[in-house]
Amino acid sequence: MPNRLLDPTDNPDLTAERKNCQFDTDALAARFYGGAEKIRRRREIFKAVESIPELRDAVQDTSFMDRMQKLENGTRNAINVAKYAEEIISSPLAQEEAAYLNSLVVGRDGFPFIIHYVMVIPMLMNNADEEQMDWWFSKAFNREFISTYAQTELGHGTNLKKLETTAVYDEKTEEFVLNTPTITATKWWPGNLGKSTNMVMVMALLYTKGKCHGAHAFMMQIRDFETHKLLPGIEVGDIGPKYGMNANDNGFMRLNNVRIPRRNMLMKNARVEKDGTYVAPKHSKLAYTGMMFVRAVMIRDQALQLASAATISTRYSCVRRQGEMIEGDGEVKVLDYKTQQYRVLPHIARSICFLFAGDYSMRLYERLVDDLSKGDTSLMADLHALGSGLKAVVSFQTSQGIEQCRLACGGHGYSEAGGFLRLYGIATGGCTYEGENMVMLLQLARYIMKLIPRIRANDLSYKPSPLTAYYFQGQYKPKFSEYSPENPREINWRCIQDGFEYASRQLAFYAHVKYEKLVNGGMKPELAWNEVAVDLVKTGYMTHSQLHSIREDLSQTLTKIRANAVNIVDSFDISDRELVSVLGRKDGHVYENLYKWAQNSSLNQHEVLPFHHETLGKMMKDAREKSKL
Amino acid sequence: MPNRLLDPTDNPDLTAERKNCQFDTDALAARFYGGAEKIRRRREIFKAVESIPELRDAVQDTSFMDRMQKLENGTRNAINVAKYAEEIISSPLAQEEAAYLNSLVVGRDGFPFIIHYVMVIPMLMNNADEEQMDWWFSKAFNREFISTYAQTELGHGTNLKKLETTAVYDEKTEEFVLNTPTITATKWWPGNLGKSTNMVMVMALLYTKGKCHGAHAFMMQIRDFETHKLLPGIEVGDIGPKYGMNANDNGFMRLNNVRIPRRNMLMKNARVEKDGTYVAPKHSKLAYTGMMFVRAVMIRDQALQLASAATISTRYSCVRRQGEMIEGDGEVKVLDYKTQQYRVLPHIARSICFLFAGDYSMRLYERLVDDLSKGDTSLMADLHALGSGLKAVVSFQTSQGIEQCRLACGGHGYSEAGGFLRLYGIATGGCTYEGENMVMLLQLARYIMKLIPRIRANDLSYKPSPLTAYYFQGQYKPKFSEYSPENPREINWRCIQDGFEYASRQLAFYAHVKYEKLVNGGMKPELAWNEVAVDLVKTGYMTHSQLHSIREDLSQTLTKIRANAVNIVDSFDISDRELVSVLGRKDGHVYENLYKWAQNSSLNQHEVLPFHHETLGKMMKDAREKSKL
Repeated sequence: MPNRLLDPTDNPDLTAERKNCQFDTDALAARFYGGAEKIRRRREIFKAVESIPELRDAVQDTSFMDRMQKLENGTRNAINVAKYAEEIISSPLAQEEAAYLNSLVVGRDGFPFIIHYVMVIPMLMNNADEEQMDWWFSKAFNREFISTYAQTELGHGTNLKKLETTAVYDEKTEEFVLNTPTITATKWWPGNLGKSTNMVMVMALLYTKGKCHGAHAFMMQIRDFETHKLLPGIEVGDIGPKYGMNANDNGFMRLNNVRIPRRNMLMKNARVEKDGTYVAPKHSKLAYTGMMFVRAVMIRDQALQLASAATISTRYSCVRRQGEMIEGDGEVKVLDYKTQQYRVLPHIARSICFLFAGDYSMRLYERLVDDLSKGDTSLMADLHALGSGLKAVVSFQTSQGIEQCRLACGGHGYSEAGGFLRLYGIATGGCTYEGENMVMLLQLARYIMKLIPRIRANDLSYKPSPLTAYYFQGQYKPKFSEYSPENPREINWRCIQDGFEYASRQLAFYAHVKYEKLVNGGMKPELAWNEVAVDLVKTGYMTHSQLHSIREDLSQTLTKIRANAVNIVDSFDISDRELVSVLGRKDGHVYENLYKWAQNSSLNQHEVLPFHHETLGKMMKDAREKSKL
Repeated sequence: MPNRLLDPTDNPDLTAERKNCQFDTDALAARFYGGAEKIRRRREIFKAVESIPELRDAVQDTSFMDRMQKLENGTRNAINVAKYAEEIISSPLAQEEAAYLNSLVVGRDGFPFIIHYVMVIPMLMNNADEEQMDWWFSKAFNREFISTYAQTELGHGTNLKKLETTAVYDEKTEEFVLNTPTITATKWWPGNLGKSTNMVMVMALLYTKGKCHGAHAFMMQIRDFETHKLLPGIEVGDIGPKYGMNANDNGFMRLNNVRIPRRNMLMKNARVEKDGTYVAPKHSKLAYTGMMFVRAVMIRDQALQLASAATISTRYSCVRRQGEMIEGDGEVKVLDYKTQQYRVLPHIARSICFLFAGDYSMRLYERLVDDLSKGDTSLMADLHALGSGLKAVVSFQTSQGIEQCRLACGGHGYSEAGGFLRLYGIATGGCTYEGENMVMLLQLARYIMKLIPRIRANDLSYKPSPLTAYYFQGQYKPKFSEYSPENPREINWRCIQDGFEYASRQLAFYAHVKYEKLVNGGMKPELAWNEVAVDLVKTGYMTHSQLHSIREDLSQTLTKIRANAVNIVDSFDISDRELVSVLGRKDGHVYENLYKWAQNSSLNQHEVLPFHHETLGKMMKDAREKSKL
C-alpha cells in the first residue's frame, strides 16, 4: 500500500517506515477529515497557498522574533489571507476551509481579527436585533472595523454576576455611561484589544433607574477610525508576554465616564427603552449557544494540536537512534523501545478519539441550533454538560500529551526548534480560557448529580438522553467485568467500555451518598457540595488476572501500531508549514536543519558579543593580572 | 504564634491568614534549611544583598528582555556576585550560602560560569592528576579562564560509547588531533559554550595506535584569551532559544583537526604515555561520582522550585476571590474550595518530601566520598540507583507540580507575570539533562530486577542495604493492609508506607516473572527486558472501605493544612527577589502590580504601532471606501 508522502530524497529511516505502509494514507486522512472530497479540497488549498508568493513565503517560525515582530508578522500574514481567501475558499461559510487556510499561512500564535470573527460576529448574530444587525454586521464581516469581546476583568473571571464594570443608563441624554470604577474592574485578557482593534463588545453590569439588571453586552468604539488613537476616557494597552499566542495583543481597558448611545446595547434578547424601562430576555440561556459553538470548535482544534505533537514525536523517534538493544547490532530507532512506544503511541490514539469527539459535538451543536429555531430547548442541558466536560478533559489531556511527546524527544525537545513550545503554549491556554477546567468539570458533575436521585428513586417516567442512558442501566449490567483474553476483540472493547461506565456510575453514586449524608447531618447543601467535590474511589470490578490480560493486550497493540506509526501520523495530513518543527519534518532531515536553524540565533550575529570585553573579558583579565602579582 | 512576615500594610486577606498562624515560621524554616544557624546566615546574606546597590538593584524579571539582553543581564549580575561573594559568604566552600546568594541576585535563567563551577571544577578534581591540578585548578577557581563541559552531540546523548568526536594521538608531535567528523558529531547543548567560555572540557573517543579506548576528557582552549576570537579549526555558536534558561548560551562546537598537547588529556585515572601506550583506569566507576553529586544537588534544587510554585499559588489563592459559596455571603477566597485545596496543597507536601530526600541523598553522597577515600565502593551501586530514581521522579513531579500550581491560578497564571514559565522552563529541563528520565528509571529498574532472583531463591547470605531491605521483608509483612480509621495517625502512616512497599514488591516480582517466561520461551534477554519495561499492575491489597477511609482522611487533612497553608509556604523562606512573581508577592498586592507590570510591554511604548497604518489601518479604510461605492 502506498504512503502518499514517500519520497526517495527523504531520510532513509523514514522512507523505510513508509515503504512498509499497510494502508492508503489518503483513505485514512479522509476518515479524519470527513471524506475524500474534503481531502481533495485540502490539497487544492495547499496548492493555492504554494502558488501565491505572499502566502507561500509567510514566515511561521517566530522563534527568533520579539513581540513587536511577532505581532507585525501575524498581522501581515492575516491580511494576506483575507486578501486571497475569496478566491481560494469555496464559500464564505466554509469554516473548515478557512481554518485550514489560516493554519497554513498564519499559524497558531494568533492574529489581530481572530476574536472579531470567532466571538464578536457570532455574538452579534445571537444578540443584535434586526436594526443593529443592519448597522454592524456587514461592516464587521467586511472588516470596516475590527473588534474584540471584553468580559474578564483583572479581579473577575467566570463569575459574570460579580463583574465590576458598570453601564448606567442616563435618561436625559439617552446614553449609557460606562466605568471601570476600581483597579480590579480593569478589563483584562481580551484578545487583540491592546493595539489592534478599534471596537469592543463589552460586558458590563446594566443599571437603569438605580437598579442592577446583571451583565449585558454593549458595542463601543475605542479608537478613532482614521488616526487609530484612543478616544477620550479610554485607556487601553497590551498585558505583556504569555505562555503562548504572543502574536496576539491580549489587552487591558479602563473606562472613565465613557458615553455611548442607548442603542449600542445589544437588544435582541433584553432591552432598555428610551425612558429607562428594562425589558428582560425571554430565554436567558440563548446567549450560551455562542459559547457552546466555541467549545465544540475547540475540541477538534485541540485534537489537531495533539496530532501535531504526535506527528513530530513519532517521526523523530524513527530518525533518532540511541543505544544498542543487542550489542554489535548498531543503535536502534528509539521508537523500537517499548518505553518509547508507551510514551508516544497513545497520543496518536487520543488525537483520533478527540477528533471524532469534536465532530460529534459539532453535529450535536448543529442539531441544537436547528431545534432552537423550532423552539425546542431539550438538547441544551445535555450539550452544555457534554461540552463542559469534554472541553476540560480534552484540553488537559492535550496539554499533557504535547508535553509527553516533547519529553519523548529528549534534549532536542527542549529547544524551540522542536515546535512544541508553541503548541503547548496554545493548548494549555485552552485549560483556562472559555471556562476554567475545574469549573467546567464541576458543572458536568452537578449535571450528573442531578440524575442520581432519579435513578435511586427508580423513576421510570424519566427518559434519559442517549448521553446519560448508561447511568440508568446499572441493574442490567454485569457486576463484574466479562473481559477475557479468549473473547473476540470487539467483545473486549465493549467490556472495557462497560468498565468505564461502571466506574463512572460508582463514582457518581458514592459522591451522592456522601453528599446526602452531609446534608442530612445538618450541613448546608452548598457546603456539602464543596466537601464532595474531589471524591474519587477505586473499584474491585476487575480481577488481577483481567488487569494483567489488558496489560498484555496493550503491549501487543503497541507492537502492532509501531509498525504503522509513521504512516498513521502522516495521515493526519499536517504539513511542514503547520508543524513548524525541525524535529518533525516530513523529510526527516533533522540534524542538518537543527544546525541551520541555530544560525538564526541573534547571539550568532557576533563572534564576540558587544558587552564581552567590559564584562567577562575584564573579569578574566583582572584575575590573570592579579595572579601574576 | 507569630508569622515573621506579618505586616499591616499587606493585603488584609493575606494578613488574616498570617494572624492565624499556629506555629513559629522561623522554627519551621530551620527544619527546612538545616537549623537555626542556617536561617540566621540566610538573613545576614539577604541583608548584605539589600545593602549593596549593585546586588540590590539586579534585575531578575527578564520577561521583557530579548536573548541578548538576558545574557548581558545575567553576565553582569553574576560578575557582581563574584565581586562581593568573598565578603558575604563565610567560606569559599560554603556551597549552600553561595547558592542562596546566587538565587537572590542572578536568579534562575543561568549565568556564564555556572557549568564552570558546577561541572568542570568538580570533574577536574576527580580526573586531573596532580600536575594538571597545578596548571588548571587555581586558574579555574579564580576565573582566569571560564570553561564548560562538552559531552552531548547533535546525534548522541546518554550513550557515551557512541560519541563520534575523536581524539587521535599523534606520537610524532605528542599531540591529540580532535575532530567532529560528521554533522551528528557536532557538540550540542553545553551550557555557556556559545559565546561566554574560552576553555572546554571535551569528551571524545580516544584513539592510540589505531585502537579506540572509549570516551575520555580533554581540556581545550577554544578562544583567544585577549581577543576572545575563536581559534583556528574551531566553529562555535549559540543553539537558539529554549523552554528555559535563556540567559544561558547553550552552544554547539565543530572541530576540524584541532591539535592539543598530550597532557591536555585528564590523566588521574587513565593515561596515554608519550609513545602512545594507553594505561587503563583502575576504578572506571570513579568518574561517576561527579554525576552523583550533581544529581544530589538537583533534588534539593528541584524541591525549592516546587516550593516556589507552591508559595505563589497558595498566596494567590488567598488573594483571589471568586464565586459565593453561600449566596449573599460575598465571594470566597479560592483556597476555600476543596478542589483548589486538592490542587495546591499536595505540592506543599511534595516540596517538603523532596527537600528531605535531597538532604538524605547529599548525606549519602558525603558518606560515599568518605568511603571511597578508604577504598570502599560498596555504597556506589545503592547511591547510583537511588540518585537515578529520585532524579527522575522528583524532576517529573516537580515539573508537573509547577504546572498544576500555575493552572490553579487561572487566567493570570498564563501570563509571564506569574513567574511560573521561568520555573517550569528550568524544572522541565531537569527531566532531560543529567540523564533522561526514562533512562534513569530503567537504570533503577535494572538494579531492582537484580535483587529479585536473590529473594526468590531465599538467599540468606545476601545482605540487602537499608535502602532495599523492604524487598526482602515481604514474607514478614501482612498480606492485606492494616490501615483503619480507628488506628492512631502514626500507625496509619506506617500502614500507608507498607502499602507502597507492597505495591513496589508486587510490581518487581510481576515484571521479573514475565521476564523469565519470555527468556525461557526463547527470547533474547535484551529483548525480553524491552518487553517488560513498561509493566505495571494494580493490586487488591486494600479494601474499598480502607480506600474510602484514606480519602476521608485526605479530605480532613486538606482542611487542617488549609488553615496554615500561607504560614507553611512563608516558612519556605523564599523572598520576592527569588519568586519574581506578581501573583506570589509576599504583600499580596497583586492586582495593582499586574497593571504596573503590563506597562513594561514593548507594545505599550506606542499608542499606535508603527506598522498600523500600512496594515490594519489600510485594510479597514479600503473596506470602508469599497462599501461607499
